[in-house]
Amino acid sequence: MEGLSERIAVVTSPEPLHPPRIVIVGAGFGGLSAATRLGRAEADVTVIDRHNHHLFQPLLYQIATAALSPADIAAPIRSILGRQRNTRVMLGTVTGIDVAGHAVMLGERRIPYDYLVIATGAQDAYFGHDEWATVTLSLKDVEEARAMRRRILIAFEHAEDSDDEAERRRLMTFVIVGGGPTGVELAGALAELSKATLARDFRRIDPTAARIILVEGGPRLVASFPPRLSAVAARALTRLGVELRLGVPVTDCDSNGVLLGVERIESRTVIWAAGVAASPAAQWLGVEAGRGGRLTVGPDLSLPEHPEIFVIGDTALVAGPGGDPLPGVAPVAKQQGTYVARAIIGRLTGRTPPPFRYRNAGNLATIGRREAIADFGWLRLSGRPAWLLWSVVHIYFLIGFRNRLVVAMEWLWSYLTYQRGARLITDERIETAPDQGLMGGHDDGSRATSSTT
Amino acid sequence: MEGLSERIAVVTSPEPLHPPRIVIVGAGFGGLSAATRLGRAEADVTVIDRHNHHLFQPLLYQIATAALSPADIAAPIRSILGRQRNTRVMLGTVTGIDVAGHAVMLGERRIPYDYLVIATGAQDAYFGHDEWATVTLSLKDVEEARAMRRRILIAFEHAEDSDDEAERRRLMTFVIVGGGPTGVELAGALAELSKATLARDFRRIDPTAARIILVEGGPRLVASFPPRLSAVAARALTRLGVELRLGVPVTDCDSNGVLLGVERIESRTVIWAAGVAASPAAQWLGVEAGRGGRLTVGPDLSLPEHPEIFVIGDTALVAGPGGDPLPGVAPVAKQQGTYVARAIIGRLTGRTPPPFRYRNAGNLATIGRREAIADFGWLRLSGRPAWLLWSVVHIYFLIGFRNRLVVAMEWLWSYLTYQRGARLITDERIETAPDQGLMGGHDDGSRATSSTT
Repeated sequence: MEGLSERIAVVTSPEPLHPPRIVIVGAGFGGLSAATRLGRAEADVTVIDRHNHHLFQPLLYQIATAALSPADIAAPIRSILGRQRNTRVMLGTVTGIDVAGHAVMLGERRIPYDYLVIATGAQDAYFGHDEWATVTLSLKDVEEARAMRRRILIAFEHAEDSDDEAERRRLMTFVIVGGGPTGVELAGALAELSKATLARDFRRIDPTAARIILVEGGPRLVASFPPRLSAVAARALTRLGVELRLGVPVTDCDSNGVLLGVERIESRTVIWAAGVAASPAAQWLGVEAGRGGRLTVGPDLSLPEHPEIFVIGDTALVAGPGGDPLPGVAPVAKQQGTYVARAIIGRLTGRTPPPFRYRNAGNLATIGRREAIADFGWLRLSGRPAWLLWSVVHIYFLIGFRNRLVVAMEWLWSYLTYQRGARLITDERIETAPDQGLMGGHDDGSRATSSTT
Repeated sequence: MEGLSERIAVVTSPEPLHPPRIVIVGAGFGGLSAATRLGRAEADVTVIDRHNHHLFQPLLYQIATAALSPADIAAPIRSILGRQRNTRVMLGTVTGIDVAGHAVMLGERRIPYDYLVIATGAQDAYFGHDEWATVTLSLKDVEEARAMRRRILIAFEHAEDSDDEAERRRLMTFVIVGGGPTGVELAGALAELSKATLARDFRRIDPTAARIILVEGGPRLVASFPPRLSAVAARALTRLGVELRLGVPVTDCDSNGVLLGVERIESRTVIWAAGVAASPAAQWLGVEAGRGGRLTVGPDLSLPEHPEIFVIGDTALVAGPGGDPLPGVAPVAKQQGTYVARAIIGRLTGRTPPPFRYRNAGNLATIGRREAIADFGWLRLSGRPAWLLWSVVHIYFLIGFRNRLVVAMEWLWSYLTYQRGARLITDERIETAPDQGLMGGHDDGSRATSSTT
């Protein structure tokens, strides 16, 4: 495959004064695959991202549940691409695209391109209730994961400290909206955090009594898996003490709980893992967005009216073999990134690339430390074998040798001890400032508790 | 020593209706030593801290320079003390002490005590220029360390992106004020970050050309060490490319640089590692503070007028063997914590404890990855042996087996590769928000750079 780039002898770019300029927006799985594949092309490659690091998003829930540190699952984009002399990395936020003028806009600044790859991923969608974003927690980047970790750990601290029985119950009730892989993995990890890791560390509350409720609007969990594996996931979560509410839509959310049809659940921690929508790429380009805000692309993943603009990963709407859209998962984004790099190199040499075709790389999800489900089409696994497979695959794909070793060690450690490595509450002064002192802030004058037995 | 607590058969507390209530404020080295030593006493122990974690402060500079993750050097206080059934941990900020009423105040809330241990550490002092706190960076907790890491990494990003030569120089100039152990260790780590780790990762700037300037008002670095070792530290830093300014006071600071007498140094990153003052304990107690805001205590570390209040660690002013005050370092705090726990247990059984006496545990500092200095009074080391000793000691004292392993691995890895494990810029949206786009925010319309060679 590297032969492709070596064969470029004559550059057929319309502007022969400079090498073709390829701009890649987003350094997730898709953008990074494209960038590394273009590392030896005779082109100027620019990678723009809002963050300085590539994030291994499938493990983000482990930061939120205090199992891993952010640095364990992130690697600096500059250091990944540091050896590619034709590649420049820019830290910046795209504000628009000048389609006619062939330039990406970063505020007032223009980054011109001959070829553009849009790999900006997805963001949360709230089914038309954008106000729910302010009262729920979500999980898309390191900051959000850290905020979730803080909120979860602080909830137990507040509960330990509260003399109000109703408030204590609210604090120890965690609602996760969305029964996809993220929701299922979060629910499992949260159950183990409260029932094992924190079990002995408090005096007035019993963390093992925390309620974890997983809400899914559809009839079954992880609907992208076959029904048999959905049932495995449901059983495993129930065994961990997670309460399931299937086929129940969320009708309202506020900072004290959620409404599920007629059932009101009081909770101070509502986690949103329900819908994703593509990043605002459609708006930047001034084109009509398809399902889920995604952009419909041609067989070579370029826009029908703009063959110089490619869209990949969660931002693109591409039909899979069965006709359904390909899911927003890492293997799809990676294969598309690689494909697009080869397509651009092909175009530069005047060749038309064959259409993109997805090779099914399988579908994996884990539920706590014992159970996982795996679907490869021809092979379906659950139980310990799937869990082992899940661990190996995730460690293998973590970018950077160092991160792999650290994550493997953390997992081994927490598997053996049930302890968690990253149980930090930081920024808590911000969180507690309004109360001036302890978060609960009541004044009973009595001895707060008797701690001896 | 544990025999002491087992021998308490008769509790002679003035209020026999409940076990004596011991409140410890601060879970640093001092507070935690006292708490663990009281774990088997027949008393109700309450540990109050603003953070949920104990922090291994001597390694905080390694977070600031992207070598370690916060979780590597922090452990949850609850989990450290989780097995002590007589101990309660509270997350909260002390706002005052009702000395007459024997209660610690958390806002409106009262935590009553029979014995109080104040171990609240130190905070930065700006020699009467508190406004400098807003334009310099400091290093006392995880948040500050993370902020410093972000600012340092972002400075290189901005420099890469800037077309203004003067601004670029300002961004690539780092000033560290204070030549004590923290300043020296930071300067060494920062030199290695720019000259090795980041060296190849940029296209327009040369990170190895970054200036690192260490400013010390006194005549020599690390004045708590013998002069010969100060000279070793100075030579080692110079070899790493750090510029030294000794005997030079800082006369002004702003967000674009510092004034050293008549010399103005333009810099966007000024780090304050100069003076420490004790926490506001004197103010809480309504007593006169001694040198550096510290509290003068009696031979048993209690306050002269309040034998039920003990003050330890950086907050206490205790004369050492030579008459000079004991330094604000971990071994002093730990020995004082242990002593106070035994003193309280002694008091409960009607015995008067012998006066506190510090056993010199030595003094260590490291300069980059090759050099360190160690002073045990009877033994003085520098070079590779001191560096090895420093590594072993710091790993050994890191609380928790897990952290030790992870830190050892990170160090081995970075020693072999010059890579750093925690090069993350997070919260950067907050940092860049005003510019709406790229941080530099200029508008030249031209191709920003040519990245091929």
